[in-house]
Amino acid sequence: MCADVELGIGDDAALVNVPPGQSLVMSLDTLVAGVHFPKNTSAADIAWKALAVNLSDMAAMAATPRWLLLGLTLPQADEAWLAEFSSGLTQLAQAHGVALIGGDTTRGPLTISVQISGLVPQGQALRRSSARPGDLIYVSGQLGDAGLGLMLALDEAEIDLPEQRRQYFLQRLNRPAPRLDLGLALRGLATAAIDISDGLLADLGHILEASTVAARIDLEQLPVAAELHALSDEWWRLPLTAGDDYELCFSVPAEKQAELEQRLQGIDCPCYCIGRIEAGEGLRIMHHGVEISAEKIKGYMHFD
Amino acid sequence: MCADVELGIGDDAALVNVPPGQSLVMSLDTLVAGVHFPKNTSAADIAWKALAVNLSDMAAMAATPRWLLLGLTLPQADEAWLAEFSSGLTQLAQAHGVALIGGDTTRGPLTISVQISGLVPQGQALRRSSARPGDLIYVSGQLGDAGLGLMLALDEAEIDLPEQRRQYFLQRLNRPAPRLDLGLALRGLATAAIDISDGLLADLGHILEASTVAARIDLEQLPVAAELHALSDEWWRLPLTAGDDYELCFSVPAEKQAELEQRLQGIDCPCYCIGRIEAGEGLRIMHHGVEISAEKIKGYMHFD
Repeated sequence: MCADVELGIGDDAALVNVPPGQSLVMSLDTLVAGVHFPKNTSAADIAWKALAVNLSDMAAMAATPRWLLLGLTLPQADEAWLAEFSSGLTQLAQAHGVALIGGDTTRGPLTISVQISGLVPQGQALRRSSARPGDLIYVSGQLGDAGLGLMLALDEAEIDLPEQRRQYFLQRLNRPAPRLDLGLALRGLATAAIDISDGLLADLGHILEASTVAARIDLEQLPVAAELHALSDEWWRLPLTAGDDYELCFSVPAEKQAELEQRLQGIDCPCYCIGRIEAGEGLRIMHHGVEISAEKIKGYMHFD
Repeated sequence: MCADVELGIGDDAALVNVPPGQSLVMSLDTLVAGVHFPKNTSAADIAWKALAVNLSDMAAMAATPRWLLLGLTLPQADEAWLAEFSSGLTQLAQAHGVALIGGDTTRGPLTISVQISGLVPQGQALRRSSARPGDLIYVSGQLGDAGLGLMLALDEAEIDLPEQRRQYFLQRLNRPAPRLDLGLALRGLATAAIDISDGLLADLGHILEASTVAARIDLEQLPVAAELHALSDEWWRLPLTAGDDYELCFSVPAEKQAELEQRLQGIDCPCYCIGRIEAGEGLRIMHHGVEISAEKIKGYMHFD
């Protein structure tokens, strides 16, 4: 039990204490079997992902996650499944110092809601709405990996991969790594941030809309696995539209680039400058200097 | 937007501020169509109940509810249904000063998770674990109403009721009134409290177990509607085992009874002394001085 948890599971509600000077950061995400993960996903992977997508929201706010409540709806009481689910959840929760403080288990179609609460010093949370023209746009990690992972999971990928690489992409789909260290490193530096859950196009779009700015990105700067190029000439389809990568996309003032690069050396997560915030509205997508229309790219979107 | 909400819906997470000296009280409950409410329940009633059962947890902790996150899983986007759901939720949320600050809407079988957060001065939350031998046991409102309401909703009640009474019992099932004022009135007075969601037998049992005490209750003291007596000789079956009433059950030191009765005059919710906490373990159920075994009563439980 963490020191800030006064009362955990077992009463009508949990009791926790927020330290002075900290804001409480709260989000809730629901995962539904067959919608957010293939029905044959293992219980441990489901639990991991349900928590990871919430931790990813904390990362995007530059928050430190502290407490979680779990709403678990299950078709039947299955002790083996529950044990496996619990082990997946505990593994990721402990890795990030998050305490399970309550929730509800009910009977019904497999659905998992995780509500997570984190802390951030007052005034230091990263929002979507503060990107400014001239800011550089960065993304973390590698985009499109989870999209390829989903194709592999659904047997839809016409690609022959060594088993190790196959497992890598499946892992990226099933066990996304929330970029919490990166979020903390961006405090006081990034002007806006979001986690990439629905593909770069949609999520960068949220920043542009909230900040009432435009942007230009250069496709050749996108960090993607070599296998994506082998998959299709339109290799950029997955990173731009497939989602589920749970990397961060953020903007940083150009004059802070050196400071950013220095801070990034302290964390185990490569980040790449992929474009720039501009005045106006809309997103220009360039490929070696030639503009590709967003409509053309959206035409390839076939994921929900 | 409430003053303590720094950032509501529309970012990766919400930001709120907890005033100094207050503990944060958190719970989450999930309602599944066909399990927690009949499938033909109106969208407004579903929303009301999903929030009310969470507010009831706040009442049982003597907390003031402040913020809610909503996880709504729906088979399809149905604007009329959503508008009705939203109106039911807003009506109850506004009545108690609760702000919707975030959540997630997903596609899937109808399931509603509400996560609620409230505030209570540090050290003043009511728990289940502090009942002491000699304490008086009280319940609020009227027990078994929702149980009869469910029988009416499912067409299982062999009873002829005037339409007004029929609507009353259905309302008690669909729109439980969280006893928030009562919870606040019990601060510093009640030794233990719980909300009655699963029937008095189960929920008082939770207090006894958490407090490692026994109790005696007198069936003839239970506050029940006259119609329950007409329903069956075992009229006590519904109040003891049917659940869904969302009244409070609490214990108070005998020497504080006068103070309790005085405080109760200030709130619009009748409460009744139904028994006493004793040393030992187990629950003795008396009817005009004759003990009825809990096993006999449990034999009539046929609700999940």
